Amino acid sequence: MSLIVVGTMAFDAIETPFGKSGKIIGGSATYVAWAASNFVRPVNQLSVIGYDFPKEELDALEARGVQLSGVQVKQEEKSFFWAGKYHMDMNSRDTLDTQLNVLANFSPVVPDNYQGSEFLMLGNLMPSLQMSVIKQLQQRPKLIVMDTMNFWMDTAMEDLEAVLKEVDVLMVNDSEARQLSGQFSLVKAAKEIRKMGPKYIVIKKGEHGALLFHGDNVFFAPALPLEDVFDPTGAGDTFAGGFIGHLAATKDISFENMKNAVIKGSALASFCVEKFGTTRMKEISDADIEQRVQQFVDLVNFDIKLSNGNG
Amino acid sequence: MSLIVVGTMAFDAIETPFGKSGKIIGGSATYVAWAASNFVRPVNQLSVIGYDFPKEELDALEARGVQLSGVQVKQEEKSFFWAGKYHMDMNSRDTLDTQLNVLANFSPVVPDNYQGSEFLMLGNLMPSLQMSVIKQLQQRPKLIVMDTMNFWMDTAMEDLEAVLKEVDVLMVNDSEARQLSGQFSLVKAAKEIRKMGPKYIVIKKGEHGALLFHGDNVFFAPALPLEDVFDPTGAGDTFAGGFIGHLAATKDISFENMKNAVIKGSALASFCVEKFGTTRMKEISDADIEQRVQQFVDLVNFDIKLSNGNG
Repeated sequence: MSLIVVGTMAFDAIETPFGKSGKIIGGSATYVAWAASNFVRPVNQLSVIGYDFPKEELDALEARGVQLSGVQVKQEEKSFFWAGKYHMDMNSRDTLDTQLNVLANFSPVVPDNYQGSEFLMLGNLMPSLQMSVIKQLQQRPKLIVMDTMNFWMDTAMEDLEAVLKEVDVLMVNDSEARQLSGQFSLVKAAKEIRKMGPKYIVIKKGEHGALLFHGDNVFFAPALPLEDVFDPTGAGDTFAGGFIGHLAATKDISFENMKNAVIKGSALASFCVEKFGTTRMKEISDADIEQRVQQFVDLVNFDIKLSNGNG
Repeated sequence: MSLIVVGTMAFDAIETPFGKSGKIIGGSATYVAWAASNFVRPVNQLSVIGYDFPKEELDALEARGVQLSGVQVKQEEKSFFWAGKYHMDMNSRDTLDTQLNVLANFSPVVPDNYQGSEFLMLGNLMPSLQMSVIKQLQQRPKLIVMDTMNFWMDTAMEDLEAVLKEVDVLMVNDSEARQLSGQFSLVKAAKEIRKMGPKYIVIKKGEHGALLFHGDNVFFAPALPLEDVFDPTGAGDTFAGGFIGHLAATKDISFENMKNAVIKGSALASFCVEKFGTTRMKEISDADIEQRVQQFVDLVNFDIKLSNGNG
């Protein structure tokens, strides 16, 4: 049940209608690791940090069973930094600042002890680097899941298309699915994206839940209706971590089990947004997760009588 | 299982990115009646039309078991007319024209043979007229469901608040729930609206599904992911008709059965949007509805193992 997680480990500075975070820990691989490690250990982390990344954050991850031998430390450079501001609806945000720092010349190297991993989570990162990781693996993983974003569609579409041909599952949000496919209807978008490579498409709709497409099958998981979404940063990465973590732990990549993975991802994401950054992810217990999953069951459960006896 | 439906019967002219409808039949009570009559007959219709409302449309409704003795015909006036244009996302629309005509001086009169009805659906209409109907009923119905819209919040808030005190279920869309409550979070909005009177709140989110709130309980029904939403006009009224029709047919107003009513409403609404106006509602059979409900079951069904044995 070995899992490689590729992505950024970074600093974020977040503004929401509820306040400012100051400089806090972020990065796609950070969130994925915190989420996935609830279900599967070790998590083989592949990333890059600068001299300024706090040792206690690395220690906390190691204590969670996150392997850091694939995390390069560039002693002369600063960690990747992103600053952003959310609007009232929390579904849209403006980037205020991006400092690539260590990412500018990052070249991921897969350590020998990561070889043979059965699951690969390509967190949001330059597509060329995602591809470099795939190419370094001596054995193709059982399942490759890829997250990406509109920025790469605008700036590195050829590289992105090349990676898409290699992955099993693509995760994007609704506007990214529309941009990538040129289709407004998400059903049509998923069909178009399937032609680009991935057999499974997960479309994340933020507070409106997530859709999982495979062939003619579609599964819908709601987001938990929350009193407040405090900070959506990392919710998508946390969702991805819960998704791949559940699959890696169960080693079952059937569509039926992917539904459960979507629910687990949604449950973890619903914690993530309750506080700034990774704060909430560090607090939750297995019992908290179990209780939250039960809330999802209750939220969508209905018992309707159909004349064919199903329902 | 008698049901009174109050609302407009009208002409619409609709523009969508897919085309123009020309002048077609619309109105909140028209859609409610077409939807509810799939489950319960008679539907006791309370509305007003002008000399120009087509007799074949009235005949079609009568053939469905819709009682028209409560529909006033004003021989000197034209029927209510609304023209609107949808944007690409189909969730927002501009009103191009509104001609009140018969509605300007409408005073609903409840016929004697409607008295004693157990279910009342107050379709979208001036709140003062909704109230007038409630006051005319000699016996309070078992369940009163009210639909309304932002226009009445802007222009007749006092009247609206008065009606809210009298109803059991309020149906609004997400932006209306936010406007009515002053809360952005829909969870908080439902709590605020509950203080205004209704014990049950249904928040319709268009392509993002619907939420049903009661006390601390919440149920979520997705919208069916469709390749195309052709025309969303009447989808909310159709949802309301399916909802109240199912409740009136089963005479069970428990929260559990309201979940099923939400699913039935969602299923009917998913047909409504497939063609202009009421076209699709006139075509569908019981078997079509059953099959569509099964699609909703399949869409949200998952079987997750929890240590408490539920799921």
